[in-house]
Amino acid sequence: MKFILDVVLLLPLLVLFSLESLVKLFIPKKKKSVSGEIVLITGAGHGIGRQTAYEFAKLKSKLVLWDINKVKADVGDVSILINNAGVVYTSDLFATQDPQIEKTFEVNVLAHFWTTKAFLPAMMENNHGHIVTVASAAGHTVVPFLLAYCSSKFAAVGFHRALTDELAALERTGVKTTCLCPNFINTGFIKNPSTSLGPTLEPEEVVNKLMNGILTEEKMIFVPSSIRLLTLVERIFPERFLMLLKQKVNIKFDAVIGYKAKKQ
Amino acid sequence: MKFILDVVLLLPLLVLFSLESLVKLFIPKKKKSVSGEIVLITGAGHGIGRQTAYEFAKLKSKLVLWDINKVKADVGDVSILINNAGVVYTSDLFATQDPQIEKTFEVNVLAHFWTTKAFLPAMMENNHGHIVTVASAAGHTVVPFLLAYCSSKFAAVGFHRALTDELAALERTGVKTTCLCPNFINTGFIKNPSTSLGPTLEPEEVVNKLMNGILTEEKMIFVPSSIRLLTLVERIFPERFLMLLKQKVNIKFDAVIGYKAKKQ
Repeated sequence: MKFILDVVLLLPLLVLFSLESLVKLFIPKKKKSVSGEIVLITGAGHGIGRQTAYEFAKLKSKLVLWDINKVKADVGDVSILINNAGVVYTSDLFATQDPQIEKTFEVNVLAHFWTTKAFLPAMMENNHGHIVTVASAAGHTVVPFLLAYCSSKFAAVGFHRALTDELAALERTGVKTTCLCPNFINTGFIKNPSTSLGPTLEPEEVVNKLMNGILTEEKMIFVPSSIRLLTLVERIFPERFLMLLKQKVNIKFDAVIGYKAKKQ
Repeated sequence: MKFILDVVLLLPLLVLFSLESLVKLFIPKKKKSVSGEIVLITGAGHGIGRQTAYEFAKLKSKLVLWDINKVKADVGDVSILINNAGVVYTSDLFATQDPQIEKTFEVNVLAHFWTTKAFLPAMMENNHGHIVTVASAAGHTVVPFLLAYCSSKFAAVGFHRALTDELAALERTGVKTTCLCPNFINTGFIKNPSTSLGPTLEPEEVVNKLMNGILTEEKMIFVPSSIRLLTLVERIFPERFLMLLKQKVNIKFDAVIGYKAKKQ
């Protein structure tokens, strides 16, 4: 009863904060400087990680680049580009990739847990830092035939959100968090993906949004931003309608064809 | 463009299906029979698993009971109760529990993956079965100081949702899915939990809701059902308001006190 009264008393603030959020949409956000900051990127050898390394190099950050795979992390061309911008280290974090469920979790979630666990205490002590979790639209909504992938990306989103809340509860607001949730990206992870929502994203577009989100300390970045609306719609609309909507969204990729062929 | 037109053409169906959902709220759902069905319960030695075993026994299902821990899974009293109802097996699935992140994931998610992976093919072949995922309210919304737990429960929710979509895509609608998402339950997992949302749940209440949800083939069960509203509110209201709301919800448990004491 007291709880309901408490919430009713908060309602004027809801109006105020909603207006504030609306106004903020039209004010360009100030970007923070990352010059001289140490930036550790896992999976830096390819795709989003590699592109993000370039961007931080341009901003004169000190880079620490890690990747699963030594061959892919052999950052010859990257190091030439960023030679004057910072310091480049490379190191192996894992042996190799594996299609097994456990490996999907290891690569997508546990590696990020371990890395965070290693660096968070120092960030918290200095009340300074920024932890970026690379999740996916598939961490909010699901795609058939990517069961372990979706589940591990849901875990990544949960990790980001719990970490954000924990830092707030411990009043370490100097340690920022950002979670990247893009739709299909053209990085070779999934073969020939397509949806009616729009063309497959190019890494450059996603990294632009990511960099902007990090520098303006945005908590959750959806690319395209319409994904945010989709996750809301999913919680409101009736199931039968959502099933029709999914047919229209029509997510396809070659892995599905292979899987179906195997099953039939 | 074609996609937007497609969606606009679907809008009359949105109204229709929404009305249908509303009407269905007031029609009592038919419960299916589980007499003679094989019911495998992991974590059957304690808490929700144990109580659920009792309920299925009463409904004359054939039980297969597994638990992490041999001591806890020594189902002396359960077997007496259900002796005439079905068959009881016990077996060890894991060595022991461990507070490490990996173990949290192993126990909460990977075990469920492996079990599903083992039994799903037969279910799909017969187009008959039901997979129940025990997640948590913490699989939708987050709680500070339960980082690995939240993340693993997010993964469980993602697993359930992706599995549901995959079964629909493969037209195996005879294989049902249910996901249980309760608030804090008084099972000793968390010491002295409390929130302003209401008293800590008793296992009996949660199992009643779970059994009802399974037998009526509900996909997502929130206990209390107000959690569903909370997950919606989280996606709409501005962040600053949500932070105040969380203060009022005031989730507390003894682990927090211990953690804070250690940090300071």
